[in-house]
Amino acid sequence: MIIDIHCHYTTEPAALHTFRDKQLAGLADAARKPAAKTLADLAISDETIVQSLQPQLKLQKDRGSDLTIFSPRAAGMAHHVGNAEVSRQWTTISNDLIHRITQLLPDNFVGVGQLPQFPGVAPAECIGELQRLAELGFVGVNLNPDPSGGWWSGPPLTDRHWYPLYEKLVELRMPAMIHVSSCCNPNFHHTGAHYINADTTAFMQLIQGNLFKDFPELKFVIPHGGGAVPFHWGRYRGMCLAMQKKPLAEHLLNNVFFDTCVYHQPGLRLMTEVVPMSNILFASEMLGAVPGIDPDTGFHFDDTKRYIDGLDGLSADDRYALFEGNARRVYPRLDQLLKRRGR
Amino acid sequence: MIIDIHCHYTTEPAALHTFRDKQLAGLADAARKPAAKTLADLAISDETIVQSLQPQLKLQKDRGSDLTIFSPRAAGMAHHVGNAEVSRQWTTISNDLIHRITQLLPDNFVGVGQLPQFPGVAPAECIGELQRLAELGFVGVNLNPDPSGGWWSGPPLTDRHWYPLYEKLVELRMPAMIHVSSCCNPNFHHTGAHYINADTTAFMQLIQGNLFKDFPELKFVIPHGGGAVPFHWGRYRGMCLAMQKKPLAEHLLNNVFFDTCVYHQPGLRLMTEVVPMSNILFASEMLGAVPGIDPDTGFHFDDTKRYIDGLDGLSADDRYALFEGNARRVYPRLDQLLKRRGR
Repeated sequence: MIIDIHCHYTTEPAALHTFRDKQLAGLADAARKPAAKTLADLAISDETIVQSLQPQLKLQKDRGSDLTIFSPRAAGMAHHVGNAEVSRQWTTISNDLIHRITQLLPDNFVGVGQLPQFPGVAPAECIGELQRLAELGFVGVNLNPDPSGGWWSGPPLTDRHWYPLYEKLVELRMPAMIHVSSCCNPNFHHTGAHYINADTTAFMQLIQGNLFKDFPELKFVIPHGGGAVPFHWGRYRGMCLAMQKKPLAEHLLNNVFFDTCVYHQPGLRLMTEVVPMSNILFASEMLGAVPGIDPDTGFHFDDTKRYIDGLDGLSADDRYALFEGNARRVYPRLDQLLKRRGR
Repeated sequence: MIIDIHCHYTTEPAALHTFRDKQLAGLADAARKPAAKTLADLAISDETIVQSLQPQLKLQKDRGSDLTIFSPRAAGMAHHVGNAEVSRQWTTISNDLIHRITQLLPDNFVGVGQLPQFPGVAPAECIGELQRLAELGFVGVNLNPDPSGGWWSGPPLTDRHWYPLYEKLVELRMPAMIHVSSCCNPNFHHTGAHYINADTTAFMQLIQGNLFKDFPELKFVIPHGGGAVPFHWGRYRGMCLAMQKKPLAEHLLNNVFFDTCVYHQPGLRLMTEVVPMSNILFASEMLGAVPGIDPDTGFHFDDTKRYIDGLDGLSADDRYALFEGNARRVYPRLDQLLKRRGR
């Protein structure tokens, strides 16, 4: 079974965008606020949702993946926009839409949710939504380490500010993917710099801290191959030693995992050379930042399964770990759900 | 000949640090301002300088490099600290110290300078110091893309804000290494996140813009192996295409170069697989971020020459390009100076 742990819903029905425009227009002119308050009010039909997912389903089939862990559009979370109430309403509707997808096409999609973060608001305020997501069958969440949208005005992930949320994640056995959203700092292109920088930043914060001493069961997935981390694996191993921490693998690798959203063969090869196979989870982020065709190969840049298939010397155990086993271990609710369904 | 294009003076005499402390103490209490105004006032003897360089000289000898392109401590630039006048005085003294090194040990060190940047001050204000550096025999400069020190409050490198400085760099045939300094944003460890993020950020800014259409002769060196860029080479090739730019190599690689400050063998191998050999310049940043010994190899993490020597299939031409030829091409004033000395 091949599980793609990182895809976002980037082909949303027009009604969702219309709602969002009205919601934000309402900030400037209350008369333009949407009448809709919930997903049900948007009256999006099952047919519309299923139709919108055809590109994803076609790629699943063409590329040979079986199940996608699916979350709202990452750049769409935009936690910094509006106010805390706007973020909360938008989060609820976005998550409810993912939930409907997982009900309509349960064999293809399992949900990961977004959180109602807002700059300056305590992460503890997200606990209610987290509990609701667990009850709806979501298996994890995306956690934005910079809800300010590129200004990095909040505290690092190791700060006690985040601890109440971590306690709940551990209680619910849900991992968090550390994923920023859109960026309003003109220095950082969102998918070309902000995403990759955030991955690198988060990992370095975790090296500096001792978070997993306090939360030995907490699990983070760092997307986009871990940003710059595998490329600078020697740097991070060396800094970890210089900071008198345990060796990098002991310090972080029981709790930190990377996905395979690296869009060329040499990158993925490097990653599997330096990161233990137990810490790499198959993903493509397809229909994401780089949906085009690589003129050098004739295949889509984000068809990451090809790069794994192109690796020399992967054992059957390695392939199982990468494509399925690690995902079941890092997302215990996914494993539970699959077992319940006899998979 | 082996030229290490990226090392900083991190073993400065105590008198320099004493001066800096007094300079910054003077911001809080004018009575504590240093009496010294210039490097000469610090009365650092030639012997003290030469003595302070022994660790560098020993490593040059042990590791087999011949010449080091040497600049003031990167984290020491701290452009965000104090005010524009503090930055200017500190820059002048720091550069003058590098100049003395290049006079005392001309066979070992060639200078790269820092610029008197300050947040919000026009880069054009650096032109005077740039001209002075050229006259003193410096072959390039470090340009800080974020003089705010981790808040990224200024415009991207492609903004016309920077153009007057670029005009002067082109006129003087000096490349700029894009190098941030220390960081006061607690999210970013300076050498573990801020440096690497800045490298990635700068490259992405250059993809988004068309800077080298306006400055076909301008040359940038992106340090630390280009941050995350080689690891995500497919991502950047794909984004460049999606943005309707020329292919990545045509769009940027006549003007953008990477150093080899990547502290493990697989990282350097990846880099030479994806980045053309003409765009990679040997460097170690030794006595920098990761000076320790790698327990896996028994050698220093930052002994990057070993990783190059460990590559399969490098031709003699490749080695010449990496170790010498590219440096002479990217730093024409270095080439000129070496030729004048019969090297």
